[in-house]
Amino acid sequence: MAKIKVGIVGGTGYTGVELLRLLSQHPNAELTAITSRKEDGMPVADMYSNLRGKVDLAFSSPDKARLTECDVVFFATPHGVAMAQAQELLAAGVKIIDLAADFRLQDLASFEKWYKMPHACPDVLRESVYGLVELNREKIRGARVVGNPGCYPTTVLLGLAPLLEGRAKASPLVDASTLIADCKSGVTGAGRKAELHILFSEASDNFKAYGVSGHRHHPEIVEHLQTLHGGPVGLTFVPHLTPMVRGMHSTIYARIDPKARDVDFQKLFEQRYADEPFVDVMPAGSTPETRSVRASNMIRIAVHRPGNGDQLVVLVVQDNLVKGASGQAVQNMNLMFGLPEDAGLGQVAVLP
Amino acid sequence: MAKIKVGIVGGTGYTGVELLRLLSQHPNAELTAITSRKEDGMPVADMYSNLRGKVDLAFSSPDKARLTECDVVFFATPHGVAMAQAQELLAAGVKIIDLAADFRLQDLASFEKWYKMPHACPDVLRESVYGLVELNREKIRGARVVGNPGCYPTTVLLGLAPLLEGRAKASPLVDASTLIADCKSGVTGAGRKAELHILFSEASDNFKAYGVSGHRHHPEIVEHLQTLHGGPVGLTFVPHLTPMVRGMHSTIYARIDPKARDVDFQKLFEQRYADEPFVDVMPAGSTPETRSVRASNMIRIAVHRPGNGDQLVVLVVQDNLVKGASGQAVQNMNLMFGLPEDAGLGQVAVLP
Amino acid sequence: MAKIKVGIVGGTGYTGVELLRLLSQHPNAELTAITSRKEDGMPVADMYSNLRGKVDLAFSSPDKARLTECDVVFFATPHGVAMAQAQELLAAGVKIIDLAADFRLQDLASFEKWYKMPHACPDVLRESVYGLVELNREKIRGARVVGNPGCYPTTVLLGLAPLLEGRAKASPLVDASTLIADCKSGVTGAGRKAELHILFSEASDNFKAYGVSGHRHHPEIVEHLQTLHGGPVGLTFVPHLTPMVRGMHSTIYARIDPKARDVDFQKLFEQRYADEPFVDVMPAGSTPETRSVRASNMIRIAVHRPGNGDQLVVLVVQDNLVKGASGQAVQNMNLMFGLPEDAGLGQVAVLP
Amino acid sequence: MAKIKVGIVGGTGYTGVELLRLLSQHPNAELTAITSRKEDGMPVADMYSNLRGKVDLAFSSPDKARLTECDVVFFATPHGVAMAQAQELLAAGVKIIDLAADFRLQDLASFEKWYKMPHACPDVLRESVYGLVELNREKIRGARVVGNPGCYPTTVLLGLAPLLEGRAKASPLVDASTLIADCKSGVTGAGRKAELHILFSEASDNFKAYGVSGHRHHPEIVEHLQTLHGGPVGLTFVPHLTPMVRGMHSTIYARIDPKARDVDFQKLFEQRYADEPFVDVMPAGSTPETRSVRASNMIRIAVHRPGNGDQLVVLVVQDNLVKGASGQAVQNMNLMFGLPEDAGLGQVAVLP
Repeated sequence: MAKIKVGIVGGTGYTGVELLRLLSQHPNAELTAITSRKEDGMPVADMYSNLRGKVDLAFSSPDKARLTECDVVFFATPHGVAMAQAQELLAAGVKIIDLAADFRLQDLASFEKWYKMPHACPDVLRESVYGLVELNREKIRGARVVGNPGCYPTTVLLGLAPLLEGRAKASPLVDASTLIADCKSGVTGAGRKAELHILFSEASDNFKAYGVSGHRHHPEIVEHLQTLHGGPVGLTFVPHLTPMVRGMHSTIYARIDPKARDVDFQKLFEQRYADEPFVDVMPAGSTPETRSVRASNMIRIAVHRPGNGDQLVVLVVQDNLVKGASGQAVQNMNLMFGLPEDAGLGQVAVLP
Repeated sequence: MAKIKVGIVGGTGYTGVELLRLLSQHPNAELTAITSRKEDGMPVADMYSNLRGKVDLAFSSPDKARLTECDVVFFATPHGVAMAQAQELLAAGVKIIDLAADFRLQDLASFEKWYKMPHACPDVLRESVYGLVELNREKIRGARVVGNPGCYPTTVLLGLAPLLEGRAKASPLVDASTLIADCKSGVTGAGRKAELHILFSEASDNFKAYGVSGHRHHPEIVEHLQTLHGGPVGLTFVPHLTPMVRGMHSTIYARIDPKARDVDFQKLFEQRYADEPFVDVMPAGSTPETRSVRASNMIRIAVHRPGNGDQLVVLVVQDNLVKGASGQAVQNMNLMFGLPEDAGLGQVAVLP
Repeated sequence: MAKIKVGIVGGTGYTGVELLRLLSQHPNAELTAITSRKEDGMPVADMYSNLRGKVDLAFSSPDKARLTECDVVFFATPHGVAMAQAQELLAAGVKIIDLAADFRLQDLASFEKWYKMPHACPDVLRESVYGLVELNREKIRGARVVGNPGCYPTTVLLGLAPLLEGRAKASPLVDASTLIADCKSGVTGAGRKAELHILFSEASDNFKAYGVSGHRHHPEIVEHLQTLHGGPVGLTFVPHLTPMVRGMHSTIYARIDPKARDVDFQKLFEQRYADEPFVDVMPAGSTPETRSVRASNMIRIAVHRPGNGDQLVVLVVQDNLVKGASGQAVQNMNLMFGLPEDAGLGQVAVLP
Repeated sequence: MAKIKVGIVGGTGYTGVELLRLLSQHPNAELTAITSRKEDGMPVADMYSNLRGKVDLAFSSPDKARLTECDVVFFATPHGVAMAQAQELLAAGVKIIDLAADFRLQDLASFEKWYKMPHACPDVLRESVYGLVELNREKIRGARVVGNPGCYPTTVLLGLAPLLEGRAKASPLVDASTLIADCKSGVTGAGRKAELHILFSEASDNFKAYGVSGHRHHPEIVEHLQTLHGGPVGLTFVPHLTPMVRGMHSTIYARIDPKARDVDFQKLFEQRYADEPFVDVMPAGSTPETRSVRASNMIRIAVHRPGNGDQLVVLVVQDNLVKGASGQAVQNMNLMFGLPEDAGLGQVAVLP
């Protein structure tokens, strides 16, 4: 089979270099173009020395990159870039995977409120699919445009899906109106930007919450929770910055419904994810650690019910740059092109 | 005024060296003895090179240490040591501050369950005072024996006190039965022990929960929450290990009672702690960071109510070795001996 | 081709888990046995959660492991274990790769001095080959027993080889009697042992030298430097402990011989390593960083001559657990079994 | 005695906040002004939350700050600022301590080459004193203008002073022409600037050299080495970036002169620094660690002679923000105003 021709728009950030790491080792993909307005002509390996000898490609300015000759284009760009180019690429038969937020929210008002810009192509948005594979696998297979989920949403949605799916009209398992997600992210989650608060000297040996009064991932989580639930959902979401490079740990709290006290929640999760290649429900009593998924596309989940009481605690870990971004994007590509879902994603996590 | 003669039992751990750092700079204290069974004769500064030229004392074995000549003895030991020596010291007129758990729980059954040993001196326990100054200041002034609080309990109790104090019989502010404390600790919280899971190579660039199904600080928090509340309290407590040396961040969730929706919670906290020298209620919207209290006895608190909804989020930071252990112990000593409460505790936090 | 049957003795340390990570992804290797006296029966993935779903093997006690049925056995054990079992395995036709020091030093007196034990099988030692591929490739192809190099020696030997090889009897390039290697290692270099000085709380945000008066890798480096040089060599070696998990950076100083002032050292290094798949000589002026080789088998080298003076400065980085240990061991296996040298070692380094 | 009125120009960087930490606890200093062009009106404690409740001062723009009413002004600014304001302040009787490089190099050509600007006041430069107390104590007492040393120079100069002082015309102890300083700095050494290479995600779990072909501290070290030596000095200087917040470790190599083989170098260092309050020569065989001086003004030195050979290895640690910057500046102030040299500098290092 001919290899898929892949273009990357905006490959200078962390999701960009991670796409390059994964795609350069992918058996069915061929990197054909990578754009950067600023770094036109610079070999990719000059910016990211881990790619020396592995990726023999230079950044090119968007006008020279001939993206319309690709089979698929990944956008590893700031919000707003993908939607500006989507129609032209689709017209040329190119599929799109956006790692930013342009195709994550179907609610236009919410998009405009949180991203401070009008949406450039509501039609494309409507046909786009939210690329959380474990929830939307079949739709993704047929999609031309995929909005790759945010890092926090991936963990919270997969941590809550077994509890909420289809439950709005059935007997509830948990109180969907008082959910809490206390999430901790490594610093790469903030991107590769020259900003003071993510300097080593500021973020090291330090821990803090941020965005408590509002974070862009909150509406994204709620919209998709409501879709899978089939009804309204109330969520308190508190993200925290953790002094580690990669990794995300979400601690999710849900009140068990009085009628669901006899449910075996461990089994519920195990059954829900039994066939998922990238979701590992750990044995009862486990406490997953972020390094157990470092540099891999796995997500690991543990379910706790302290004192056998009414409070369920779900622990979810992922690598924010892999399953939380670039790995999930490749997983989406695999589905969109009929490849084995795990093609190029078999890496064992790097521990220690 | 003559300086207080201070003895330290078991000074080789982190709370021990932190006591030495604080007491060696204390204007009214004189270090007269420090014991270690293993390190008899070794100069303290040979073990902790930061003390070179500052502390001119050697460890001595307990039998040589003449602790009964001290005015006060700090126990920076494993659980069970202080209660074995308490009666002899009290008989000699020596006051006791225990940094372990021997005098933290009045509930004997709970103590025996969690610490796997019978209590050696229930009488002394009964007269002892729980050394959380902001809750028990007056009792501490008159105490002969103080049980210095655990690190997690200090943050959770101070983060919830304004919401619960005396509310069992008054109009409630929050639902006391569904409280959640999601707590993150630096690795020194695990002590100075040769154990694999706290190696640099295991704990660095990594994040995980632990003790989800049960942690010794849970009964301690609940007992004292119930005391201040005046009634039953339900708490879910999930501690996490964070890759930093010092620091603790507790994110506390409480459901606002429907009748309390108009309460100004920011003001409530500000008023409660207005006169407290070591509690800083930060301006509305703040997200305190652990380094802002590093190596100092301060605790900083911020109160959030996301979306002006029914969920209150209280953020609390402290240095787990200072306000969470040795600094609080010195604060207790100051009160027990009629000194200014902040004597020797004026250090500005070390940032960056 | 049938896969090579691989056994690992002592797989519970960091070199063990790293062998498992690499070999479980190796196209020509089949893990058939892994021994641990303590953990008999425990699934490997229960100890190392990154291997869940990837390695379906349990530790077995040495007596049950049937190592004589393997094609090759790796020893990821303390010093002294491999030499005790070498003769039996060789008799059964099993090849041996020892990641400890049993087959690194031909000088028996030096071995006994530094490792405090007599050598159990000098005959096997004599036929063994020092597994630094870039120096001994042809010998390794025919070897039955390989002593896998220490982490520091790998960087220092490769950093100095182009300057010293065969120079004892030719015109010297540098003064071989005043070499200096100032080396910095991540904490995994100290292994997975419950020891105080490598606790997170001790090693984090901290930097120090160690072993200045003598380190086991010093005689190993000198012996092999002398072999490649063909004459005596004087080396000052100062290792340092750096607060990072993986990675090693060696800064090597050599005085240029007055007659060699016109040599193009950049070119010398480029030519020496032009055909080496795992040695990357970076462009003049580069400063390689350890993360550029994280979790990969690459070594990167840069050559500097500050102010165009008489002092040469060679910078070398590697991942101490890969090229410095387990990756190099797999590279040796590949050669010993006629496989492509880079089989199973194509991973792109993980950055960031 | 009236307190000294202190102004700080440019207090938003790390040396600025460190000056604030030290001076706010200084018994003889009163902070009266702190300038920042950008942050005019902002309370200092809003930028640095560790100062909440400790420093009740706001940044003011330079024109409002009335610096001429101060007794002393510290410049914690980029290079070039102090020399532009020096003459006006001196005319008003204000003393100056510059933490940048304006008054570190007497060699004007060297200053212009390395700092890319002409010197604005060569006359002031000529009367200024290089503020390395242990070398220039008496001159500093009488100085109106002090150039506070760079962080690297402080360690290298103090590490070499006992070996070189006055030796150009006496029997040499070491070869002054082949000195090597291999230095490792924590990331705060790079300042508080929004730059990519010092992001947490770039600098964490990573190690690299930089400035190998030339660093501004090289001419500063050489100029002052030559002054104390009384003759020419050759130094190779390689700085490295280490993943820690604070701390500097310099490993210094010097070849022992054949005639000096019987010198007791341990004793030489001990005698040289016997009366120095901030220099601790550790016992023979020690390996000082950076955390042993964290947040304190101490410098610790150990002297090694591996294998009793001809290579001397001197290990020096300091906190780059204290003895390497702001602490040393306060030490200079104490001397310039006739205060006890250690006033306000008695802090015990924070360990762990």
